[in-house]
Amino acid sequence: MKKFINAVDDVLAESLDGLAAMHSDILELGPERKFIHRRAFTPGKVALLSGGGSGHEPMHGGFVGTGMLDVACPGHVFTSPTPDQMLEAASAADTGAGVLFIVKNYEGDRMNFAMAAEMADGPVETVVVDDDVAVENSTWTTGRRGVAGTVAVEKIVGAAAEQGRDLAALKRLGDAVNARTRSMGVALTSCTVPAAGKPTFTLGDNEMEMGVGIHGEPGRRRVALASAAEIAEELTGAVLKDLDAAPGTPALLLVNGFGGTPAMELYLMAGLARRIAEAAGVRPVRFLVGNYVTSLEMAGCSITLSLLDDETMALWDAPVHTVSLRW
Amino acid sequence: MKKFINAVDDVLAESLDGLAAMHSDILELGPERKFIHRRAFTPGKVALLSGGGSGHEPMHGGFVGTGMLDVACPGHVFTSPTPDQMLEAASAADTGAGVLFIVKNYEGDRMNFAMAAEMADGPVETVVVDDDVAVENSTWTTGRRGVAGTVAVEKIVGAAAEQGRDLAALKRLGDAVNARTRSMGVALTSCTVPAAGKPTFTLGDNEMEMGVGIHGEPGRRRVALASAAEIAEELTGAVLKDLDAAPGTPALLLVNGFGGTPAMELYLMAGLARRIAEAAGVRPVRFLVGNYVTSLEMAGCSITLSLLDDETMALWDAPVHTVSLRW
Repeated sequence: MKKFINAVDDVLAESLDGLAAMHSDILELGPERKFIHRRAFTPGKVALLSGGGSGHEPMHGGFVGTGMLDVACPGHVFTSPTPDQMLEAASAADTGAGVLFIVKNYEGDRMNFAMAAEMADGPVETVVVDDDVAVENSTWTTGRRGVAGTVAVEKIVGAAAEQGRDLAALKRLGDAVNARTRSMGVALTSCTVPAAGKPTFTLGDNEMEMGVGIHGEPGRRRVALASAAEIAEELTGAVLKDLDAAPGTPALLLVNGFGGTPAMELYLMAGLARRIAEAAGVRPVRFLVGNYVTSLEMAGCSITLSLLDDETMALWDAPVHTVSLRW
Repeated sequence: MKKFINAVDDVLAESLDGLAAMHSDILELGPERKFIHRRAFTPGKVALLSGGGSGHEPMHGGFVGTGMLDVACPGHVFTSPTPDQMLEAASAADTGAGVLFIVKNYEGDRMNFAMAAEMADGPVETVVVDDDVAVENSTWTTGRRGVAGTVAVEKIVGAAAEQGRDLAALKRLGDAVNARTRSMGVALTSCTVPAAGKPTFTLGDNEMEMGVGIHGEPGRRRVALASAAEIAEELTGAVLKDLDAAPGTPALLLVNGFGGTPAMELYLMAGLARRIAEAAGVRPVRFLVGNYVTSLEMAGCSITLSLLDDETMALWDAPVHTVSLRW
């Protein structure tokens, strides 16, 4: 295993310490590093809380800040955070207007966030993100997996929370954005979880995993490496088919790197995905290209389309000040 | 070779098309994709022009925009752009106040930028960046290599150009920033140049290249993989020794990923580097962590310290609106 680590058990703590030291203008760690929170909460604003296993950085810690999340709970690598973490985070962030949980659809996360919601003192609502069209049910999921589309949900709902909308309205908005957001990914190489010390899966020199999950879970099929154009066609095509959007619908196009793919290739894929979407009548008008929802050092990418309307486009455009999204 | 490409010969063009399509609010491509330029030039402002081989994205195209570069010339992967590209770019960007070339110290780049400077109609000055302390002279270099410290030079000089400083003043500032900026990197894996189709170099399962260059050039020595703490100590120690800064000097700390290393590990390294610098009396007060000067998909990172004073800190903090740096 070739990684910059000291001891496997210390990777998460040392990484969080680094994050907090570099970005003390934006975020802080809670006690015992149980959560990452904005430097200052806004009284009366609904708090947005997300979290999940680590290894997907910058999600979610890199999305904590004005205009997006109030607090994020980092689990160990590819492991759900505990209800205890979520409860303490919710309690710290709740300034009286309640807390919205944004939860990617994995069984461990669903169960732990549900327990935390039940035990919380204040009002809690939950938005479940399940944007991955690759497979129904999977290794760790009943129903579809939550993947890169989470960025769209957290950004758009985060902007709406900043406007002072109430908990019920934000829950409705989050569900609506999720319903209009679809993704699919492909892996060219595996990732290596530090605690495992070896690649999660093995791919031949000429193989790729089409429809891979963000933990390296199996996708639709393992096939021979194809051209960028063919891959873009399959990923974007699957997303478009599932969205079944009215012609001319504007959309956010997110081409997300899984960690090990260079920007050069991501932009190449993005150019292709854009043209495929346009040819199908969906009109990408907002773009995001880069490593946003990663799988450690996995080479690969996912393509997300999130349909927009005037309201959600304005919320996407609203100011955001986090480590990884800032405008 | 596992990459998202169609034909090897089209990688650069298709990637540039993707970049331009995603970020048409910030940048445009010049004729025949010879350069990437800001949407609008500012009359009377000195134009900042940089460039170099592709494969280091987001450098330099991702740094084109208000507060940083006016124009960037992308060569083929790890190959200098041509004097012809530079000349056309300079001619497009020069609004009467001259052009400052920011050139990383590689023989091909030096020679081609010098030819362009000689042939240019308007006044041209050149700042050469050579921040890499790993080796004197190397595969493609007489003297030290220019690496991640280029980001500090381009950002700080870019902000000063925005204030209306003249060409001579910007040349002096660029040289001064370069003189106070030092870097060193390490590779855990090789990169693969598309046209070569196989890894640039080979490392054993337990080896790393200490002092590697951003094209995978050999560094100081090939040694057994060490702990993050030991690696951070060697990289930061070499940078600190060469800087020989007065105790208490404030600095920018840049922990730069080469493309294949996850954010989690970069932040872990950043936390270590910060403490090592502080223990040595240099005070990091500004931070940048991420993939800024990459070597395609190489796993590894570099550590840069750039000593600041009140003036350069204010210029670092000044607004910037590019694809990859924005505040």
